[in-house]
Amino acid sequence: MRFGYLGPETTFTHQALLQALEQAPEELSENAELVPFTSVATATNALVEGEIDAITAPIENSVEGGVSGTLDVLASHDRITIVAEQIVPITFVLAAKKPMDLADVREVASHTHAQAQVQGWIREHLPDVAIEPASSTAGAASTLAEATEEEAAGRAAICSPLAAEHFGLEVLASGIEDTVGAQTRFVIVTRNHRIPARTGADKTTLVVHLPHNRSGALLEMLEQFSANGVNLSRIESRPIGDTLGRYSFSIDAEGHLEDRRVASALRGLHRMCPKVIYLGSYPRADRLRITVDAATADSSYDDASRWVADLGRLISSQE
Amino acid sequence: MRFGYLGPETTFTHQALLQALEQAPEELSENAELVPFTSVATATNALVEGEIDAITAPIENSVEGGVSGTLDVLASHDRITIVAEQIVPITFVLAAKKPMDLADVREVASHTHAQAQVQGWIREHLPDVAIEPASSTAGAASTLAEATEEEAAGRAAICSPLAAEHFGLEVLASGIEDTVGAQTRFVIVTRNHRIPARTGADKTTLVVHLPHNRSGALLEMLEQFSANGVNLSRIESRPIGDTLGRYSFSIDAEGHLEDRRVASALRGLHRMCPKVIYLGSYPRADRLRITVDAATADSSYDDASRWVADLGRLISSQE
Amino acid sequence: MRFGYLGPETTFTHQALLQALEQAPEELSENAELVPFTSVATATNALVEGEIDAITAPIENSVEGGVSGTLDVLASHDRITIVAEQIVPITFVLAAKKPMDLADVREVASHTHAQAQVQGWIREHLPDVAIEPASSTAGAASTLAEATEEEAAGRAAICSPLAAEHFGLEVLASGIEDTVGAQTRFVIVTRNHRIPARTGADKTTLVVHLPHNRSGALLEMLEQFSANGVNLSRIESRPIGDTLGRYSFSIDAEGHLEDRRVASALRGLHRMCPKVIYLGSYPRADRLRITVDAATADSSYDDASRWVADLGRLISSQE
Amino acid sequence: MRFGYLGPETTFTHQALLQALEQAPEELSENAELVPFTSVATATNALVEGEIDAITAPIENSVEGGVSGTLDVLASHDRITIVAEQIVPITFVLAAKKPMDLADVREVASHTHAQAQVQGWIREHLPDVAIEPASSTAGAASTLAEATEEEAAGRAAICSPLAAEHFGLEVLASGIEDTVGAQTRFVIVTRNHRIPARTGADKTTLVVHLPHNRSGALLEMLEQFSANGVNLSRIESRPIGDTLGRYSFSIDAEGHLEDRRVASALRGLHRMCPKVIYLGSYPRADRLRITVDAATADSSYDDASRWVADLGRLISSQE
Repeated sequence: MRFGYLGPETTFTHQALLQALEQAPEELSENAELVPFTSVATATNALVEGEIDAITAPIENSVEGGVSGTLDVLASHDRITIVAEQIVPITFVLAAKKPMDLADVREVASHTHAQAQVQGWIREHLPDVAIEPASSTAGAASTLAEATEEEAAGRAAICSPLAAEHFGLEVLASGIEDTVGAQTRFVIVTRNHRIPARTGADKTTLVVHLPHNRSGALLEMLEQFSANGVNLSRIESRPIGDTLGRYSFSIDAEGHLEDRRVASALRGLHRMCPKVIYLGSYPRADRLRITVDAATADSSYDDASRWVADLGRLISSQE
Repeated sequence: MRFGYLGPETTFTHQALLQALEQAPEELSENAELVPFTSVATATNALVEGEIDAITAPIENSVEGGVSGTLDVLASHDRITIVAEQIVPITFVLAAKKPMDLADVREVASHTHAQAQVQGWIREHLPDVAIEPASSTAGAASTLAEATEEEAAGRAAICSPLAAEHFGLEVLASGIEDTVGAQTRFVIVTRNHRIPARTGADKTTLVVHLPHNRSGALLEMLEQFSANGVNLSRIESRPIGDTLGRYSFSIDAEGHLEDRRVASALRGLHRMCPKVIYLGSYPRADRLRITVDAATADSSYDDASRWVADLGRLISSQE
Repeated sequence: MRFGYLGPETTFTHQALLQALEQAPEELSENAELVPFTSVATATNALVEGEIDAITAPIENSVEGGVSGTLDVLASHDRITIVAEQIVPITFVLAAKKPMDLADVREVASHTHAQAQVQGWIREHLPDVAIEPASSTAGAASTLAEATEEEAAGRAAICSPLAAEHFGLEVLASGIEDTVGAQTRFVIVTRNHRIPARTGADKTTLVVHLPHNRSGALLEMLEQFSANGVNLSRIESRPIGDTLGRYSFSIDAEGHLEDRRVASALRGLHRMCPKVIYLGSYPRADRLRITVDAATADSSYDDASRWVADLGRLISSQE
Repeated sequence: MRFGYLGPETTFTHQALLQALEQAPEELSENAELVPFTSVATATNALVEGEIDAITAPIENSVEGGVSGTLDVLASHDRITIVAEQIVPITFVLAAKKPMDLADVREVASHTHAQAQVQGWIREHLPDVAIEPASSTAGAASTLAEATEEEAAGRAAICSPLAAEHFGLEVLASGIEDTVGAQTRFVIVTRNHRIPARTGADKTTLVVHLPHNRSGALLEMLEQFSANGVNLSRIESRPIGDTLGRYSFSIDAEGHLEDRRVASALRGLHRMCPKVIYLGSYPRADRLRITVDAATADSSYDDASRWVADLGRLISSQE
């Protein structure tokens, strides 16, 4: 199987994919071929056209961009499905080609999103350094690794520990991110619409277009979740793009399509919204089982259906 | 068939029953036996025990009381069903045994609820008259009819036109109600749980117990209707009676159990409420068809169910 | 001061008024004159016209009717205010002019609502007795008291213990109601719009007309309460009467006009509803203090107002 | 005045700033000094520390990233205010140092977000070209402009028309974006908390933390808007970052702090949410006046306040 990812090698997206393969069955991970792409859009096209079998892309809080791109790309295809998510802890190192004193670092390269996350550390430890943008943290590391010794003098890269190791760089300082504990969420997307079975700790991703751009429409849409006791863990409005003021919502809901409460909420959305795109149900990366209220347990839906069906048998016209 | 009603003869409830029988198939109305009861509770017991086959009782705005009694009695039985409703226009006459000048009327008898509805007229035309309470408007008329001529001197009754006619009284004044156009709603209740087929202009009556006595519980309950586009035409809170502060709600919803949107709302109520009593779906007396939003038409429910079922087929565990 | 009530003497409404006077300052209760009326409407007219100073009327679960009448009468006047409520426990006795064996009772008189509440007992202990309707439980007792010994032979009345005592009747059986612990709620209404101060255990009564007869309007109205954390202890839909399908709602809300959360909900109702009638804020009969969520405590409203006012000072146009 | 922006020169953010200055008073635009920054975070720090007076940053749908960064950065400072927004139409050109046939283009440089938006065109017209990531579209153009003729042979950049013009490049093809009509929204942020006066076509930006991570909390939060008839034009959930599963919401609401309905919604949010950050009210870029329902017009709020205040004067304790 061929797995595309937002590259180049050793990006955090790459790490998310490696992490996913570690958890996968051995026969899958042993035969996996990893293919870097320069954008989520090109990777998705390759997926849709059958050149690759899955892609890994950032969906929330990415260090290296791509999040809104991922959301929009996923929303524009209806033959792809999210089958897994991966959470990757975000930590940065300052790396150089050779061991070097911090005082000798004159130029630091990295992706702008990564720079934003270490700027406090930079200001404190390297106040006078020049910042050189790179297209990704991995790109910064690889460029430095390929540089001649002369070119590499006084230069360092901000990158992931994996990138530093992979490209044989020396780590000058580690854990330099300003916010400790930051994480980025990635999704694994496949072509064939095969939905993983319910685990009890699942998430469902949707794109929903609102019927009207009015005060109550968003609320009415959310009531379909609320009336079924379905909690949302992410919601983002996205302009639909056809006319000003029309919005779609990218949503992560807690639960699986197999959960009666999720299926019921989906039916409600399908009725009231001009467009609902189902992007998949898949295990939560944190394996956290949520507590379901008795009123929205599967058995409550079954009982309620049976009750109404029993009543329905008394209708004269249906005898 | 034996039809019980809140009597005595010629009450407005009696009129509602006669009106219902006029609209019924000839073979039914020709063989109907009408049985007056002194209360809704005794009539309902007779129904449940099989002594009679149906009862007629006031459910909204009764001139002669019985409304809250009817609501509570219906809520306490689960083997009875409302199969029809009747609207009776409420109008009163002042009637006497013999023709008489208004100036000679010294005493007027009627049910207190009826008196309340003609008090403006009484004040204007009979300012000095003595008011004598009777147990019903029909009772006032029949007592007067049975009185000796001496006893009947200077006396009149406030009753329905039907009662005046039935008991052979002279109408001294008609249309004496203060509010023109008042109506009372009655229901026909049977024992056997046979639900009339959908006509497209239907009403469904329920009793619902709320899960908790808190600010949001009523709202959450109503959201089950709202999320399915079901309008309510009547809602009344009733203390449940077991502990202080617990309420049930007596509800008339627009639509029929056969309507997918009503069935869906019922399922939602059954899930979230500790008790839901279904009291029947039946044609509206006004035959008014309601406009159903596209999002809550039967076809929308069918489409949504099909969509989710199609998605469900892709779940791995269900192959 | 003159206090009107739904009479005659010794009705449960009378008891409610006596109970209220017991709790009132001595100078008030000593100088009180009690005036029975035959209907809530006539009493209310007398109040509005200044003939009396207050009225007592049933508002929930009355044994002797008058509830819907009370609601409608209160809604139709805007110069009257509820200043107190009284809860009266409902219990019945079987009383006769002379001591008598139950086996000798051949006829029992009472108000139909009262009969409904003792029918189980009657069926068990007096299965063959004739039921004679009376205009009130008090009326049944007084008629029996005034009867000759001959007339009174074999006859009994179902009435309140107070009525039996007042009219000098013998109690043949007491506590004969089928539902133990039943209560009726009464309100004391005055003319002068003086609102009792907040006690911390208060209730506010309103009549609200809905803007449109559509699925969402009731919900939107209730959201004004919910958004301010105000719980409802009673809600009843009442046809407005001008056109079919328009409803008003009679509502008891927990809290006092002085509570910021109640005032805020009232403002919201006033904005969205074509008509809001404020009928008063008054101490709850049960003196039960409700727990107010931190988000809807007065201090939260004050903090929020201050915060927005502070922000407002930064607006350029307002400098 | 010194205006920071997400640079380098000729980025779309730069364009947004130029566009804003064109609309500003002449004395402001003539004395403006424009300062590029490599990230929103560094620009914001410079703003907070007084080095610059305003910043321009992308807030929705950016071609060059920075959106989630902008949202998070704005949320983490409480002494800055959005005072304006600018919408910039997004269109791309393919530019080279010298006129060149498309067939001769072998390598194309651009920011990855920009590449994603032209990939359809690239696939059709330059199927075999090598893609070279650059840190921004402007950076791609400037690098090409500075290249020697030899280095520039066979190379092109994807950039804005402004960048091509500014760096003296030849436009080989224009309007090459796959989605015609795409736009990015930028905000102008200042330090001094001075809120522009209401224009009638305004927007208010907030960050709101939810009280609990449960099914109903989001709905309750949105009801504060809905109960005041305030429409949202953007909503995005953002992890708060302290514990898993806690979310904040970045929100654009229609209307201005001076609008009574917006102030009322803000008060409601302040009461129920642990944290509300007000980021400013400012004119909408599209100057579109919204229609306000009568129920939520300023006059309705004033009427309602007056009504409740009048009632309040009747409270005994407040005499």
